[in-house]
Parts: sequence; C-alpha cells; structure tokens
Amino acid sequence: MPASKRPPSPVRLVFARRLREERHARGLTLEDLGERADMNWSYIAQIERGERNVSLDNLAALADAVGVPLADLLR
Amino acid sequence: MPASKRPPSPVRLVFARRLREERHARGLTLEDLGERADMNWSYIAQIERGERNVSLDNLAALADAVGVPLADLLR
Repeated sequence: MPASKRPPSPVRLVFARRLREERHARGLTLEDLGERADMNWSYIAQIERGERNVSLDNLAALADAVGVPLADLLR
Repeated sequence: MPASKRPPSPVRLVFARRLREERHARGLTLEDLGERADMNWSYIAQIERGERNVSLDNLAALADAVGVPLADLLR
C-alpha cells in the first residue's frame, strides 16, 4: 500500500502520536523499533506520520515491540 | 488480501470475539453492521472468524458502527 496523500484519519493520528510517545519514553530510535518489530525503520516513520493504514497484525507487533498493550496506543 | 489458511493471530481473535459480542449485544445482524460500516457482510463474517488482517481505518469504522471505542475491542 503506498503512502496516501490525503489527510490521515483521526485514528491514524492517535496511533502515530502514541507510538512515538512510547518509543521516545523508552529511548528507542526508529531503527531500534524496526529491529524489534522486524519492520523497516522508514515504514515506521511513515506510520508515525499517519501515512500508513497499518494492519491489525502489524499494530500488535508494534505494541509488543514498545512493550505497551495495543489498546493503550489507540486512545 | 485473501483470507489466510494459517491460524489467526491472537490479536485477531480478540478483535473477532469482542466485535461479535458487541454486535450481538446490540441485536445487530452482519447485514446491519455491514450497512452501518459500509462494508460487505461476508467481509465482516471473515473478520469475526479472525481470517482478515483488518486495516486501522477499517478497525475504527467497525468500532464506530457498533458504538464502542476501538480500544475496548482490543482487550
């Protein structure tokens, strides 16, 4: 799925902000998180800008990689 | 994305169970929910069996259609 040019949906912006907050709180770089979640760091950067419509399995993998329940990254 | 033949991931099973619970609690059929969420009922049936790796925007649309915060459908 290519990055969209439309404004990100509200839920993407929530997840983007919360993921970045929790990543920073743990002192993790995009590269660190990418290694933990087995994803490319540039894909995670796009997610943190709300540009990606992330799948449920990848949402769970990212929550696991930062060590936060997925529900806590969505409100 | 076609429905996968592999066992559903844990997070898919959580969402599947919670979505069905909340749909039933409101007396909604798959068709009702499909109309509200602007999705095909058979796609929602696959989601409720954990067969689909639903995107974040569609997760939010389904939560909105049953009237529950998305976070509450993921734990």
